[in-house]
Amino acid sequence: MEIIIHSAEQLLSVTGARAKRGAAQGDLGIIENGAVAMRGGDIVAVGPSEAIRGMATRETQLIDASGCVVLPGFVDAHTHVVFAGDRVNEFEMRLRGASYLELLKAGGGIMNTVRATRAASVEQIIVETRARLDRMLAFGTTTVEAKTGYGLDTATELKQLEAIYVLDAAHAIDLVPTFIGAHAIPVEYAGRADAFVNMVTDEMLGAVKAWEEKRQTKGPFLRLPFCDVFCDDGAFDAEQSRRILSRARALGFPLKIHADEFANLGGAALAAELGATSADHLMVTRRDEMKKMAEANVIGVLLPGTTFGLGKHDFANGRAFVEENVPIALGSDLNPGTSWNESMPMIIAMATRYEKLTTAEAIVAATLNAAFATGVGERVGSLEAGKQADVLIASVPDYRHLAYRYGTNPIRHVIKAGRVVV
Amino acid sequence: MEIIIHSAEQLLSVTGARAKRGAAQGDLGIIENGAVAMRGGDIVAVGPSEAIRGMATRETQLIDASGCVVLPGFVDAHTHVVFAGDRVNEFEMRLRGASYLELLKAGGGIMNTVRATRAASVEQIIVETRARLDRMLAFGTTTVEAKTGYGLDTATELKQLEAIYVLDAAHAIDLVPTFIGAHAIPVEYAGRADAFVNMVTDEMLGAVKAWEEKRQTKGPFLRLPFCDVFCDDGAFDAEQSRRILSRARALGFPLKIHADEFANLGGAALAAELGATSADHLMVTRRDEMKKMAEANVIGVLLPGTTFGLGKHDFANGRAFVEENVPIALGSDLNPGTSWNESMPMIIAMATRYEKLTTAEAIVAATLNAAFATGVGERVGSLEAGKQADVLIASVPDYRHLAYRYGTNPIRHVIKAGRVVV
Repeated sequence: MEIIIHSAEQLLSVTGARAKRGAAQGDLGIIENGAVAMRGGDIVAVGPSEAIRGMATRETQLIDASGCVVLPGFVDAHTHVVFAGDRVNEFEMRLRGASYLELLKAGGGIMNTVRATRAASVEQIIVETRARLDRMLAFGTTTVEAKTGYGLDTATELKQLEAIYVLDAAHAIDLVPTFIGAHAIPVEYAGRADAFVNMVTDEMLGAVKAWEEKRQTKGPFLRLPFCDVFCDDGAFDAEQSRRILSRARALGFPLKIHADEFANLGGAALAAELGATSADHLMVTRRDEMKKMAEANVIGVLLPGTTFGLGKHDFANGRAFVEENVPIALGSDLNPGTSWNESMPMIIAMATRYEKLTTAEAIVAATLNAAFATGVGERVGSLEAGKQADVLIASVPDYRHLAYRYGTNPIRHVIKAGRVVV
Repeated sequence: MEIIIHSAEQLLSVTGARAKRGAAQGDLGIIENGAVAMRGGDIVAVGPSEAIRGMATRETQLIDASGCVVLPGFVDAHTHVVFAGDRVNEFEMRLRGASYLELLKAGGGIMNTVRATRAASVEQIIVETRARLDRMLAFGTTTVEAKTGYGLDTATELKQLEAIYVLDAAHAIDLVPTFIGAHAIPVEYAGRADAFVNMVTDEMLGAVKAWEEKRQTKGPFLRLPFCDVFCDDGAFDAEQSRRILSRARALGFPLKIHADEFANLGGAALAAELGATSADHLMVTRRDEMKKMAEANVIGVLLPGTTFGLGKHDFANGRAFVEENVPIALGSDLNPGTSWNESMPMIIAMATRYEKLTTAEAIVAATLNAAFATGVGERVGSLEAGKQADVLIASVPDYRHLAYRYGTNPIRHVIKAGRVVV
């Protein structure tokens, strides 16, 4: 055995929970005085310390987790981590009361980041993104869903995909790509949304597919990206979203959708209808739509950092989703406009307080369910034999401290694919 | 010169702001390409890098702060950092909807921590508190106001004071003590609040004064503690608070008050009437009371972490206080019940979003104004010659990133009294 972590106050195996219909969102599979053994980047065994320690040889690195909680690495199920520049000017304008519309008129908002990302080289984007990934890793994130969507033209969307692939290979964190060419209507298509939708369906999707097929350096998680659409007021309506996602599905893309963040345009129901992997944001989703999501096994990805980042109060009603048996995952929504936060523990602290998840539910949402929402639930998100050894040691005596205390970093060590990286 | 930090993108001297009536809350005194020179634990000079670098000798440690912001160490103006145990059980009960009253009936709430703190040795309290101070220091806090109030009997209140004095001497962070024997009505005085108030005025205050006078190991900040009272529903009413604070004032204690957290019992006006140094919490304070605070130069200490910690939405209206010329300071309110948070950057992130302070106002509130609220404004809280060298180097290119980004740790280095400690 290469590494054995033992004597954890609690080891959270998270094997009891599944992102399936009717699953137990809050089942952490706790093993007291628990241990986990790793070899070749994978988990070999999980169980009581006494049993697992017997697997040690002279070469084994033994890590004593006394007084600590051991859990799966966090999976961040929704990020826009790949971009250039920042929007700190807008943050100050918002603090002074500027509305979204005023920001847009001042040439701001998402187009600010689109301009910066179009202008930046892929190397520059990688340098800036790497610093964010480093902070995410230090706070326990080991897998990241990463979206494009700051290109809005084919060349820049492919440049963002290139950055994602390079960083997946070069950084300890695994990155799973999502193509969201329909993230906003670019200025050059102002007033011609349908023409832009046509460009996405007729040009971009095929270009992404061709690009991906040509690329030979596939990591363990990489395959055709997810296709995502921002279905909301000011972005794309339900019919435009349906056109894009239907075409993507026909080409073999798995699907995601930004739904119900500001206005309810029917995005959650559309996700159920098209069999999307996840619907994300969900601040104004109705109960009947939640039932449809549950029936179609669509994972609800909640993003409390977005509400907080904007200084708003309308957090998604996580409790209602759990009551309706919708599997819930969490993400940071890390992006330069609404929420620049790299800490999943902070997301857990918010989800418990403002979305009314229990701490156990929030941890399942930040690990196994987030892994399923990211398409990698068979490989990471729980501590069980055969899975990749993505393991955290948290300096807390009880898992509930991961939500109870907030603002600092509870993560003492991060093991990624069997290597101690933090 | 022992240390020179130079080439900061922005050095925030915070010398333009003062916690005085009509002061400019948001004046950071920014020096671009700034530098600070230190010797013997104090600041010797602050200014443009070109001028300050000329003061270097062969012995000088030069620290390059390119790409970074240099600012005064954070002062946390309101904490209950000294306690034993935790209340993680209550957090889960609250998440499941238990009210404050139900918690109290279940033997919970503040009396839980009182029992644990009474039962713990002073050594145990010091060990547990030291871990919290370590995290606070890592996130940039260099001075902490620390309250008693988990004793509610004379012996335990003095034990908490002892812990504060020992930690002030032993830890890099400076601690400033506050006595708050009237933090709650202990169970042994249930239904006899006035008898408890008599005990505070006739016994505890004298005992604290005698104890402090006997103690000879005074640090630079230590003198008679502040006297504080929790003036609110379920704690002490305005008349009881007036009796305690008046007696304390007669004995020479500087004053603080917990006011207007849940109900408005007139605590803010009482603070103005008695010339208190600060009134704290202030979630339901009226404009006419703000005007009284401004006239009496009472500093308003806002604690957004408490509202967040409880998952509530009624943040204090920081903007209104600024409009009424009340000097505003910030604190974490770190305590085991409502808000276990050791990060002042997180407090700044909340104050800007939910209390409508600008980032500049929030930084002044977390440095110089917090220092004045803690009685040490002449010694720390700004970067100017003659003050103690408590200096932070933050890994951000512009001070506004300290609020714009949140959840992680922007602090790269902490210099405390001229020594690099983080």
